[in-house]
Amino acid sequence: MLIVMQSLATAPQIDAVVAAVRELGLTPHPLPGATRTAIGMTGNTGSVDPGHFEVMPGVAEAIRVTKPYKLASREMHRENTTITLPQSDIGSQTFTVIGGPCSVESEKLLVQTAEFLLSKGVKLMRAGAFKPRTSPYSFQGMGLEGLKLLQKMRAKTGIGIVTELMDTEHAEAVEEATDIIQIGARNMQNFSLLKRVGKCRKPVLLKRGLSATLEEWLMAAEYVMAGGNYQVILCERGVRTFNDHSRNTLDLSVIPPAKALCHLPIFVDPSHGTGKRAYVPPMALASIAAGADGLLIEIHPDPDHAASDGQQTLNFEATEKLLTQLKTLAGVLGRRM
Amino acid sequence: MLIVMQSLATAPQIDAVVAAVRELGLTPHPLPGATRTAIGMTGNTGSVDPGHFEVMPGVAEAIRVTKPYKLASREMHRENTTITLPQSDIGSQTFTVIGGPCSVESEKLLVQTAEFLLSKGVKLMRAGAFKPRTSPYSFQGMGLEGLKLLQKMRAKTGIGIVTELMDTEHAEAVEEATDIIQIGARNMQNFSLLKRVGKCRKPVLLKRGLSATLEEWLMAAEYVMAGGNYQVILCERGVRTFNDHSRNTLDLSVIPPAKALCHLPIFVDPSHGTGKRAYVPPMALASIAAGADGLLIEIHPDPDHAASDGQQTLNFEATEKLLTQLKTLAGVLGRRM
Amino acid sequence: MLIVMQSLATAPQIDAVVAAVRELGLTPHPLPGATRTAIGMTGNTGSVDPGHFEVMPGVAEAIRVTKPYKLASREMHRENTTITLPQSDIGSQTFTVIGGPCSVESEKLLVQTAEFLLSKGVKLMRAGAFKPRTSPYSFQGMGLEGLKLLQKMRAKTGIGIVTELMDTEHAEAVEEATDIIQIGARNMQNFSLLKRVGKCRKPVLLKRGLSATLEEWLMAAEYVMAGGNYQVILCERGVRTFNDHSRNTLDLSVIPPAKALCHLPIFVDPSHGTGKRAYVPPMALASIAAGADGLLIEIHPDPDHAASDGQQTLNFEATEKLLTQLKTLAGVLGRRM
Amino acid sequence: MLIVMQSLATAPQIDAVVAAVRELGLTPHPLPGATRTAIGMTGNTGSVDPGHFEVMPGVAEAIRVTKPYKLASREMHRENTTITLPQSDIGSQTFTVIGGPCSVESEKLLVQTAEFLLSKGVKLMRAGAFKPRTSPYSFQGMGLEGLKLLQKMRAKTGIGIVTELMDTEHAEAVEEATDIIQIGARNMQNFSLLKRVGKCRKPVLLKRGLSATLEEWLMAAEYVMAGGNYQVILCERGVRTFNDHSRNTLDLSVIPPAKALCHLPIFVDPSHGTGKRAYVPPMALASIAAGADGLLIEIHPDPDHAASDGQQTLNFEATEKLLTQLKTLAGVLGRRM
Repeated sequence: MLIVMQSLATAPQIDAVVAAVRELGLTPHPLPGATRTAIGMTGNTGSVDPGHFEVMPGVAEAIRVTKPYKLASREMHRENTTITLPQSDIGSQTFTVIGGPCSVESEKLLVQTAEFLLSKGVKLMRAGAFKPRTSPYSFQGMGLEGLKLLQKMRAKTGIGIVTELMDTEHAEAVEEATDIIQIGARNMQNFSLLKRVGKCRKPVLLKRGLSATLEEWLMAAEYVMAGGNYQVILCERGVRTFNDHSRNTLDLSVIPPAKALCHLPIFVDPSHGTGKRAYVPPMALASIAAGADGLLIEIHPDPDHAASDGQQTLNFEATEKLLTQLKTLAGVLGRRM
Repeated sequence: MLIVMQSLATAPQIDAVVAAVRELGLTPHPLPGATRTAIGMTGNTGSVDPGHFEVMPGVAEAIRVTKPYKLASREMHRENTTITLPQSDIGSQTFTVIGGPCSVESEKLLVQTAEFLLSKGVKLMRAGAFKPRTSPYSFQGMGLEGLKLLQKMRAKTGIGIVTELMDTEHAEAVEEATDIIQIGARNMQNFSLLKRVGKCRKPVLLKRGLSATLEEWLMAAEYVMAGGNYQVILCERGVRTFNDHSRNTLDLSVIPPAKALCHLPIFVDPSHGTGKRAYVPPMALASIAAGADGLLIEIHPDPDHAASDGQQTLNFEATEKLLTQLKTLAGVLGRRM
Repeated sequence: MLIVMQSLATAPQIDAVVAAVRELGLTPHPLPGATRTAIGMTGNTGSVDPGHFEVMPGVAEAIRVTKPYKLASREMHRENTTITLPQSDIGSQTFTVIGGPCSVESEKLLVQTAEFLLSKGVKLMRAGAFKPRTSPYSFQGMGLEGLKLLQKMRAKTGIGIVTELMDTEHAEAVEEATDIIQIGARNMQNFSLLKRVGKCRKPVLLKRGLSATLEEWLMAAEYVMAGGNYQVILCERGVRTFNDHSRNTLDLSVIPPAKALCHLPIFVDPSHGTGKRAYVPPMALASIAAGADGLLIEIHPDPDHAASDGQQTLNFEATEKLLTQLKTLAGVLGRRM
Repeated sequence: MLIVMQSLATAPQIDAVVAAVRELGLTPHPLPGATRTAIGMTGNTGSVDPGHFEVMPGVAEAIRVTKPYKLASREMHRENTTITLPQSDIGSQTFTVIGGPCSVESEKLLVQTAEFLLSKGVKLMRAGAFKPRTSPYSFQGMGLEGLKLLQKMRAKTGIGIVTELMDTEHAEAVEEATDIIQIGARNMQNFSLLKRVGKCRKPVLLKRGLSATLEEWLMAAEYVMAGGNYQVILCERGVRTFNDHSRNTLDLSVIPPAKALCHLPIFVDPSHGTGKRAYVPPMALASIAAGADGLLIEIHPDPDHAASDGQQTLNFEATEKLLTQLKTLAGVLGRRM
């Protein structure tokens, strides 16, 4: 159930509704909007009577929400969610590029890439310290050592950081080191991890699982939000189908329904989505045209010698060309970039 | 094998190569380009020695082509194929919209839609006289009667026609009535039908099968081309996956690899691809950004009362808005429209 | 709508109901059962009132059938359909093996295989005269010449024949030459072909399409039955998924729901389903355990030199071993074989 | 690389090889077999020379293993792995049924079900204390409380326990409480969790991920084995495809290739695989016929009132009937049960 307050409702009126929700053994989630506040509630709401709230002062209406996701649902939060970072805002009418190498390899690589990105107006950088790898014998990332390099690099350059968290054990260290916590596709339904980042105070970039339906993806976001962390960014990175023309099947068609059902920003990762360098720019352009709020792109000064994923990574020259094209499109599509 | 002629090769030199191919029991396919001619050959080319041709006057080189498709392969035909129609050119740097109702319903509907389309600069119209339907009890289209209405409408308005051929029996009637022959997704591997349209003298719009790999799709195009009809337009219309957020999974990611491997124009049908009216415009914009050469869109003056597929059909107002957006994007993407 | 007659209903009473259905502009389909007759009707039955029939003499009840397939539905025909051939009955408690080479290659091969099969109690043989091939440059089968060889072989050995029909053009010739007409997976939604075999007087073995849902498959059977040919055998042959451990994903899990919803016999083709010789026997055993009514298996005296599909073909020795295992399982599962 | 010792090799000879592997900075994995020992090695083996080992006393041969999985590969361990539990052996020629409720609900339910299972010869019971649920608002299992009930029940009845571990935090508690640790499908590529159970001293039942290829599944087993825990049981539970006739697509066709490539036992979970009670028995019978080593089945005295998954759960009567059928099949298939 969602309780929509009147636009002139006072703070004490809102507090009273929050308290009334708690009395019913449910969890209230106040959701402030531009003109009015709504209060979501989670728990077993099946037996709650909307009339119980509609008589309270300051309440405009109480609405039964039928989707299994509530906090993530646009029915409960009509306006687009904007995520505010020191470096950049995400969502709404902004288009945000996050670029960088697949893995943290060295401080030199990080600083070189960060300086290049900043010089082109890109203010967020991705790089993995913990790497989920199909084989136990592959390079598993630099780990805590890598986190330290990321922090040194940020102190030096000021760029924002996105890095992956793979388990609850390193949640604190990653939360400390990064600006956005990435949850990888293979962990999209690692519910213990989702609950843990629900307790973090950094935004979460939640990659779509390889065979996740849109509803399952939104339910995974709901796990994070139900824990109290409402700053979730969805990221489409390709799903698994019979197709063999690319590493995964980048599903841009999920963007319009995700936007219709959910108020969270949605990004696209065309690097993992296609698995092939040459296909990244056209799919990046298609992403902004389809309505995405940003991109996650693998960029490396020398992709052919990257520690991982080189075949899907752009060099600086290709990145610069793509950024120019994206800015042109952003202009005609009414997006700030 | 592909024999590339020197740019100054004479017509008699080309003819001599063509004759030499025939002598080996193979079928020659001369492929004229802007600066030089190449001659493809099909049949069992496994045992043919490139040296046999390289000594002939006017021959630049003889190349073994390893892909199972040959005539459709960009290795054999480096430049984009352009299809020339009285109403419009397709391919190369043009972006072409084909719009119209799912089914032929009445002459009035056809004329009204054609006049609207022409007034907005759209010169090709789609409408099905023969309708492939999952159920034997559903409306199967107006058939030959529908073809007649299409011809009357064309005589009156001058718009070009795209309509589906479902079986060899009606090949002659459809070829006569239409400007482009459509082969539906469910018939993409109806090899008898593909061979038949290989004998037609009208371009073929070949929809991708619901679970066709890119290679199978190009092989289907190869069936048509091997019959002598080189005017093939590929059309992505969504594939079948586990996704339930749309009717099919529109696979825009197939466009870059299709363009890399094949010289034929590629269109997108976002109406069947999404199955939902509201998702058609964003996916249409994404298609042009991803590199598509055109769109096939379902348009009807009153979609809620269309004989079929109304839920995925745009009305005139939505069409007009979309065409304006497409023109803006075409402008910045270097496409004529 | 389905009209169930009383068990004591007379022939004139049944005829009267049939006539009443026709008067409403609908098509009656009398479906005789062991104890009583039911009369299905197809056409636009939406506005028909069950009460119209329930007052007629001999009528037990009139039931609205809600599935989009009617004639194929178990709601309309509760008992399993048995298909009676001169060589063998199919369906009910029989388990039937159909074996033979992928393609007709020579009379000698056909006779040798037929004699081997008959000596092991296998009374139906498969062999393709028309071959659907992904590439236009691959061997397309011996065609009409192949049909003649099949007929000569049948005259000599008495074995029953299953062969594929690929287009309406050859429908008469194939119907004449074969005992069961096979419709291939790629033609499962070639609706013109389905309508044509609905007019044939030979049973139809209908392979499941590569991405067909169960409902679409039953609707394809419905197309054949709506034409008047009720002798349809379903054949699962693997669907297309992300799996790469076998050529297709053999979907044995479709057998129980197909049996629940539909009264037609269901076969399995583990040769195409797995694409690998070694996996055919375990999946054949699993098929009978899952409830299949028979198998379609590729068998060749010398698989490594077969004209097509050798890697998924059993030799005589492996066939004999498998037949012995199947007979043991049939015994404990209550199946005649 | 795999070093195969001679059948008469002595323990000191084996120890010398193990030490030599360590000296190269690699990890040795001695794999004792019935007639001889093999020593696998993991780490960066690319530069190791087989000749280095082949000259050592007692060594029969040193083989490069090309599959990305090594410890799980049949190339390294030709004989089937048997897992020895106090209650029952798993693998080889045994067929093992593990049954029980989806969730731990109460001690009474557990004891009642255990006593029923034991009376029918079933010696292992499944029941989840930690439940992975798509929605954060669904019942998440009884947690540690549930583990205590499981332990009380085992003390009382002697039945063996299989229960799921969802995160590293509860690894110790689950290892203590259970006989087999289950890793769920959604965690198949939770690499941190896989590494953790690699350190456990209890067998691991590893469910296949919803879109995992066979190779990825074997690589997940490899993660566990590379940690030192060689007691892994694979469990197929349905994959995600376009099919809508069942909850997931139970992929029995993975059994023969899994058996060919890997020496570990493989189980099937027809309850999650089909999602529908009526389809469980035929798919269970098909599993044993396809070569599976056991089943994981949801059983509850009153499925319609189960806390979760009731629609796919068998009651005692249906279970008893299925066990009788399985025993009959096991008899003719040469399996002990």
